[in-house]
Amino acid sequence: MSEGFRTGIVGATGAVGREVLKILESREFRVASVRPFSSAIGRGSHIPFRGGTLVAEELMAEETFKDLDIVFFAASGQVSRQFVPRALEAGAFVIDNSSHFRMHADVPLVVPEINGALIRKKMAKRLIANPNCTTAQMVMALKPLQDAFGLKRVVLSSYQAVSGKGQKGIDEFLFQAEDVLAGRPPEVRQFPHPIAFNCIPHVDVFEEEGFTGEEHKVMNETRKILGDDSIRVSATCVRVPVVNGHSESVSIETAKPVTPDEARAVLAKMPGVRVVDDPASSRYPLATDASGKDEVLVGRVRPDPSLEEGKHGLLLWIVADNLRKGAALNAVQIAEKVAEVLKS
Amino acid sequence: MSEGFRTGIVGATGAVGREVLKILESREFRVASVRPFSSAIGRGSHIPFRGGTLVAEELMAEETFKDLDIVFFAASGQVSRQFVPRALEAGAFVIDNSSHFRMHADVPLVVPEINGALIRKKMAKRLIANPNCTTAQMVMALKPLQDAFGLKRVVLSSYQAVSGKGQKGIDEFLFQAEDVLAGRPPEVRQFPHPIAFNCIPHVDVFEEEGFTGEEHKVMNETRKILGDDSIRVSATCVRVPVVNGHSESVSIETAKPVTPDEARAVLAKMPGVRVVDDPASSRYPLATDASGKDEVLVGRVRPDPSLEEGKHGLLLWIVADNLRKGAALNAVQIAEKVAEVLKS
Repeated sequence: MSEGFRTGIVGATGAVGREVLKILESREFRVASVRPFSSAIGRGSHIPFRGGTLVAEELMAEETFKDLDIVFFAASGQVSRQFVPRALEAGAFVIDNSSHFRMHADVPLVVPEINGALIRKKMAKRLIANPNCTTAQMVMALKPLQDAFGLKRVVLSSYQAVSGKGQKGIDEFLFQAEDVLAGRPPEVRQFPHPIAFNCIPHVDVFEEEGFTGEEHKVMNETRKILGDDSIRVSATCVRVPVVNGHSESVSIETAKPVTPDEARAVLAKMPGVRVVDDPASSRYPLATDASGKDEVLVGRVRPDPSLEEGKHGLLLWIVADNLRKGAALNAVQIAEKVAEVLKS
Repeated sequence: MSEGFRTGIVGATGAVGREVLKILESREFRVASVRPFSSAIGRGSHIPFRGGTLVAEELMAEETFKDLDIVFFAASGQVSRQFVPRALEAGAFVIDNSSHFRMHADVPLVVPEINGALIRKKMAKRLIANPNCTTAQMVMALKPLQDAFGLKRVVLSSYQAVSGKGQKGIDEFLFQAEDVLAGRPPEVRQFPHPIAFNCIPHVDVFEEEGFTGEEHKVMNETRKILGDDSIRVSATCVRVPVVNGHSESVSIETAKPVTPDEARAVLAKMPGVRVVDDPASSRYPLATDASGKDEVLVGRVRPDPSLEEGKHGLLLWIVADNLRKGAALNAVQIAEKVAEVLKS
């Protein structure tokens, strides 16, 4: 593999797939070739890549993924369920961005800065799951705090961008915004209600006890990535009229006492995290600043005045590009770790 | 006063002032006359009222508020500080929507459905403070839960509409949205950053310990209105690109055990609150549904899975029209209570 990896991307014409290709272009992961797979609708789409053009091919039921070293799955859980086993049979290494395998006990759920060591350990399985976007950026901020102060409780309220619903979500939102500004009723297909000029506390489908799938993902995946089932997590996931970049308001309870200064110090040392916390200059994380960037931004770090006497904790505001650290960047970082192991 | 009250409105051309006039038109509060006061900029503005037109007069430094029975203040804290004492000296009854007097120990801070009895009790002072918008809608949902189950802790993350920044905030947001859609850089004056397609965790000014004034207001006013200084409250207040209607993600800890069904039952009995909680039909509170309505909408009621063993509580999603229950409606409801007392 000295010339690089023969790479497949399932969902190559989607928002995450396109971002995977952009990130592959800009980083050191060596690509020998790319086969971009899409749905029937995307077939024939031209995708610019390294000065040339890739042409999307339809993912057919009989696809065998022959002669591919690594395949990124960036489509639905349904597509991963059907096709990931096929790619594994063909001998490829799979990085799956869908939720399908994330909570399988024998599939590592990886954020490389946090638990990248699992990749080498579980190399033989050739399957790594990429976390939910809302989870990935949150655990990036929680991990150094967990290491330094212990982590007992997490209460999340999210402000999630429409790009989490893919390119169709972005398009629908922008059309809706134009419609509303022009006084026309907005057309609704991708979201359960108009998202332009609205906040919708309904991301993914409703499941048991009144929680959504997205909320369950955050609650379960956070514990799995941080490697501690005793951490108590609650999540309220909300779609907001932002194109790209998820924001999160997070209250944490730590095991040990922690001051905002101490927290900022350990956050600043975390690779992939940038502390943006200078309220006097109106500097704090913003979706518009995080979009297009790799780093997870953390700010508004302050004591949580609602903690019981004798308990410790903080309030945080965490923002990142949900298509990058929340999806495509994290997937490529996993691929880079896989490449290291294969080389060594 | 059989023909009604001679009424003054300071800030009559602002978003809240105009809403006060709209609500006065539609309710039973008897108005004999209205003097609409504005800043120099608003002077001469024509304001439609009951089929006629009011013409805004500039609030001059020497204004005495002579011959007014009741004056609504819907301008800045600075204006209230300067002019409320003047109106009181002239014998008027004052309902102040600014934050200036809210935390004064001898000034009642009133949400009529919750602590309206204070109006009669403190009638002689002739000054009632109207709460912060984010606080008002939250306590409407918290009060029946407090009464039934006890209330120990509240963790709020808000999703606040631009109308909270007045008509100028609405105008700036809409211009910015048009600019961004057209690919032009948005112009920023009212907000610290572009609010179109963004979430800004900065409402009001930054104060001590990294909290904003808005967050301090919510934390302090919640305790004062609910009449219990032992309730522990934390708030993260965020401006979102929504024209009107604040949304709130709230985690509460109660003293007694509570199920979502029990909570919905007591919420449904609270005057001014409507339970909208049918996830299977994608029904939950939305800013676009609350805007223009009087009721506080409560939904997404579910257990908080992050509570410690032996503790009790819930997650809630609370939405209301911040210009109505959050400001103008509540002020007029106070005026109606004042009228009742004056009549009796």
